[in-house]
Amino acid sequence: MNIFDLPPIAPPQELYETLVSSHDILIERIISKGHTTPVGEWYDQEQDEWVLLLQGEAVLAYADGSLSIVKKGDFVFIPARTQHRVEFTSTEPPCIWLAVHGKMQNDPVDAVNLELEDSADRAVTEESS
Amino acid sequence: MNIFDLPPIAPPQELYETLVSSHDILIERIISKGHTTPVGEWYDQEQDEWVLLLQGEAVLAYADGSLSIVKKGDFVFIPARTQHRVEFTSTEPPCIWLAVHGKMQNDPVDAVNLELEDSADRAVTEESS
Repeated sequence: MNIFDLPPIAPPQELYETLVSSHDILIERIISKGHTTPVGEWYDQEQDEWVLLLQGEAVLAYADGSLSIVKKGDFVFIPARTQHRVEFTSTEPPCIWLAVHGKMQNDPVDAVNLELEDSADRAVTEESS
Repeated sequence: MNIFDLPPIAPPQELYETLVSSHDILIERIISKGHTTPVGEWYDQEQDEWVLLLQGEAVLAYADGSLSIVKKGDFVFIPARTQHRVEFTSTEPPCIWLAVHGKMQNDPVDAVNLELEDSADRAVTEESS
């Protein structure tokens, strides 16, 4: 498979193809050809998403009223629980998305724990010196 | 930034740009313009890597003697601890890689635990029925 190859006949639905799937990471290719999120519906995902548009043009909309106008080569980071919709996808050419899902932000508590571990390490060093 | 935009002057070294970085996932763009892995050296990474060539042509070599000939749009999965080298990258056009690093394979023990959890669920269902 080549990421730029399209199926000979465009399926009526958006096409999702899983490229990598593990506990930590999902990588998928999505083909959209004029598809949009049904009116009144929002994506509201448990995981962070990083999405790269490899071909086509698209518009994403967010619950706060803002928009992302996405052209070929643009990428967008959508934090978990950020409500968003696909408002527009081009048909000629169709949109080819590469989407990566997973945990892309470190918890503040992790940062604190790392600092504490670091302090502990320093304390031991001082004791032994 | 657009993933297809190149710096106006190609840097002498390979260019690595971090796009996403967390405990679980690293996404980076790499620009190679004729760069190869120094003779006799191998990459030997702790994490799995999934790499997509967005532009250019390249050849990867593995310690078992096999090669991946990579063209625009091709992607390669390199499991952790798979020794590999970059044997060739095109200069015109330069190579634009999208690399994702993380844990992309589930441990066999995870699979067993999931099965056990599943059995436990079923057992509870049976008990309560």
